Amino acid sequence: MRKVYIDYNATTPIRPEVKNAILEDLDIYGNASSMHESGRHARARVEQARADVSSLIGAKNGSIIFTSGGSEANNTVFHTMRQLAEGSDESWKMNGRDSALRFRDEFLVSAIEHPCVMNSALNLKKAGFKVTVLPVDEYGKLKTDELKNSLSEKTLFVSVMAANNEIGTVQDIKEITALVKNAGAFTHIDAVQAAGKIPFNAEEIDADYISVSAHKIYGPKGVGALYVKKSAPLFPLIHGGHQEDGLRAGTYNNGGILGFGTAARLAAVEIDRYAKETGALRGRLLNGLLENIPGVKINGHPRDTLPNTLNISFPGAEGEAILLSMDMRGIEASTGSACASGNLEPSHVLMATGVGPELAHGSIRFSLGWGITEDDIDYIIEVLPPILTRLRAMSTLT
Amino acid sequence: MRKVYIDYNATTPIRPEVKNAILEDLDIYGNASSMHESGRHARARVEQARADVSSLIGAKNGSIIFTSGGSEANNTVFHTMRQLAEGSDESWKMNGRDSALRFRDEFLVSAIEHPCVMNSALNLKKAGFKVTVLPVDEYGKLKTDELKNSLSEKTLFVSVMAANNEIGTVQDIKEITALVKNAGAFTHIDAVQAAGKIPFNAEEIDADYISVSAHKIYGPKGVGALYVKKSAPLFPLIHGGHQEDGLRAGTYNNGGILGFGTAARLAAVEIDRYAKETGALRGRLLNGLLENIPGVKINGHPRDTLPNTLNISFPGAEGEAILLSMDMRGIEASTGSACASGNLEPSHVLMATGVGPELAHGSIRFSLGWGITEDDIDYIIEVLPPILTRLRAMSTLT
Repeated sequence: MRKVYIDYNATTPIRPEVKNAILEDLDIYGNASSMHESGRHARARVEQARADVSSLIGAKNGSIIFTSGGSEANNTVFHTMRQLAEGSDESWKMNGRDSALRFRDEFLVSAIEHPCVMNSALNLKKAGFKVTVLPVDEYGKLKTDELKNSLSEKTLFVSVMAANNEIGTVQDIKEITALVKNAGAFTHIDAVQAAGKIPFNAEEIDADYISVSAHKIYGPKGVGALYVKKSAPLFPLIHGGHQEDGLRAGTYNNGGILGFGTAARLAAVEIDRYAKETGALRGRLLNGLLENIPGVKINGHPRDTLPNTLNISFPGAEGEAILLSMDMRGIEASTGSACASGNLEPSHVLMATGVGPELAHGSIRFSLGWGITEDDIDYIIEVLPPILTRLRAMSTLT
Repeated sequence: MRKVYIDYNATTPIRPEVKNAILEDLDIYGNASSMHESGRHARARVEQARADVSSLIGAKNGSIIFTSGGSEANNTVFHTMRQLAEGSDESWKMNGRDSALRFRDEFLVSAIEHPCVMNSALNLKKAGFKVTVLPVDEYGKLKTDELKNSLSEKTLFVSVMAANNEIGTVQDIKEITALVKNAGAFTHIDAVQAAGKIPFNAEEIDADYISVSAHKIYGPKGVGALYVKKSAPLFPLIHGGHQEDGLRAGTYNNGGILGFGTAARLAAVEIDRYAKETGALRGRLLNGLLENIPGVKINGHPRDTLPNTLNISFPGAEGEAILLSMDMRGIEASTGSACASGNLEPSHVLMATGVGPELAHGSIRFSLGWGITEDDIDYIIEVLPPILTRLRAMSTLT
């Protein structure tokens, strides 16, 4: 049976160059914290990977901390902010800024953040902190007026994702960080889906924290990174050894880090071609579905979107039923975030854009990547319409 | 040049069977949380690995949560205990026990724990909690009388490692957990160095939490696991997706987890032979050094020790100088924990056993594993004595 994996926002296959980098590392001995030659060699390779990840996001004026993934990176920032808000860590003093921050303990997040940001925010709320969820418009763009109104001298921290994992909408990050900075608060940008897909420059954006992940750009799972601006504090989520200057303990995951570095280096070189090629295929898929399935609705922003992401609502059918029917024909897509699958609630992202619960339940995310061909797209365009006809007929019967 | 890597407690090379498991996974698509066939396939492999890790430590009456390593596993337990002590998480209720626990907020750790446990404890102390460091005897055994005296109705939690990473001393864990349980507190056993090297059975030991790691038993770096007894609470350190029943968010590190499973399965089968073979080589090394270098002192317990670990003090020489001299001849050992290297303080483990700072500074840890031969041992016995003679002569001159 033909197989079309079109769920690259959930995870990407590992590309051959990355596989080779990991393979090479599997034969290397040595703990990157050890003094001997094997240890020093392992360490040098970690540092090369760090430079490659820095380059991908244009990080000059700050440092890159390796983590076990995007979720840990995001959680580390929330943990740091909580410590600041509680005043429970006295180790951080910043020229004058610390005293002003002492009175700040409120948090803002957009309504369409990834579950790991949403649940970290929820956790702060449970602990008694004021957390405001900022609304987005029908295309998933943060309403900057609402951000302006919500920012106050109590705001410590704002977390907004650069590009949404479910609907692909790209935020006007530079404008957002400027507003937040102007209000004296910290900004965290979850760039897990953006990095490597759209141009993204930490210096230009001027955020305090940026999270990225390897397995969304053809690197291995289990490794991510957190960019921390020089002037921003960081308190470890994982205490222990002196790795990462004491900011993240645990033996270096050499293989994963090396694979990440290689993936980042390649993504930086190929970013324009990636956007062009996945964008063209996305257009072909969109047109094919619009022409062959009546009543479809496109979710996300018509222009400011990840080139590889297409989220579509199919009124009159259940998303999970569509997914399973496609899966039986070898097409692998998703109803939203893999991290939320198994969850019976409708997508909080779609709901935030004003899509009703019924339509949200009937939505599919196609996310494209290297390896998908025009033939694959045409296969989906051939297979999906009769599935929808059948499911809609069944739905009318009940 | 001949190369003898004898630093297996820092990290082990990946064995071929594990490499093959990882390799196989590198070609598999799919996020283990996705609904489609690729996702389900990835998930099934994760569950097989979970069963293999469970088997290695005889974990029946509890669950195994995958983490990014031993440090994260240990930190998750400390995080949970802190939440309990603060009463800040109301989500956990246990038949009657929760109300008794409400008045408990004191912590006990042994004096020779790994830096990730020590620094987690230090962090609790900084936050205002009472943390008692329990002394050990000259062989590194926890003084159980002191434990008995320190346990009270205020004690929430006791953390003791099963076997020490620097000196190899194996604790009488069963006796310790029984004492702690009797006092109504929780036990955490850091079994990162013990699992796969000495028989270790979670059911027999009856601890509430057990931490293990893959890269100490020929598995990949960047993956570990936490055993949690059925009746014990766990609060996530990393919030986010619903992975691991919501107890540890983040995309599954399939490759790492699969490699861990394979390593655990093999370790369980080979544990007796491993002890026998590394133990015999350890004995050969010990005898050779005793015969050829005057004044050496053995650290650790004469009988209750990891079979692969030999820690020796060389009076009149600096450990780092010995290490570098050996490294120039291709022998890679360590002065103690890789996680503490770069640290100029003498080993806290040796100091706790009563070794003075000078002798502690002149100590070397040899940790053996698969692949080391009698010839390798004889090479060390040949190379090390003249190094000591030279360094001791230099030291007398200054």
